[in-house]
Amino acid sequence: MEKSITRSPKEKSVEKSFGQVLRQLREEHGLSQEELGLESGYHRTYISLLERGQKNPSLQTIFQLAKVLNVEPSEIVERVQTIIDTRSKRIPK
Amino acid sequence: MEKSITRSPKEKSVEKSFGQVLRQLREEHGLSQEELGLESGYHRTYISLLERGQKNPSLQTIFQLAKVLNVEPSEIVERVQTIIDTRSKRIPK
Repeated sequence: MEKSITRSPKEKSVEKSFGQVLRQLREEHGLSQEELGLESGYHRTYISLLERGQKNPSLQTIFQLAKVLNVEPSEIVERVQTIIDTRSKRIPK
Repeated sequence: MEKSITRSPKEKSVEKSFGQVLRQLREEHGLSQEELGLESGYHRTYISLLERGQKNPSLQTIFQLAKVLNVEPSEIVERVQTIIDTRSKRIPK
């Protein structure tokens, strides 16, 4: 069913979904990408890449961002799962 | 305890704790490092490095391992948090 050698669309969606969750949490906290970057120790361009699903965050990064965003790291991952599950139901194949 | 300039002991413990959780889950499933590697698409040496806390897994990797280990990715992260919380309580400073 999967054609890609290195990454399936499903895999790609982990990053896309994470980006969506990160943006949502950041906006809920009224932070700019720059502010979130400064508080978490990352460059704003890295935050931007994460939010656009172009970087695959490490567990370490998730813990660091979660601290600034005042959520449990597992809650971030749960939200990512929810988006992925909703998506895979929407796409019939 | 840590000599590195870039990482605090707290940060390092994310990887150590993840390694502990991964080993536990793998053993619960009666899988060898090689078997887990084969099923998840990683080399057994990478699994070994992860279990020893010497690699910082990406969110993608966590999702892939969780599938094979038949747990929710967020449950893995929750278990990591529990270990970190227990540890930080044990260390008085």
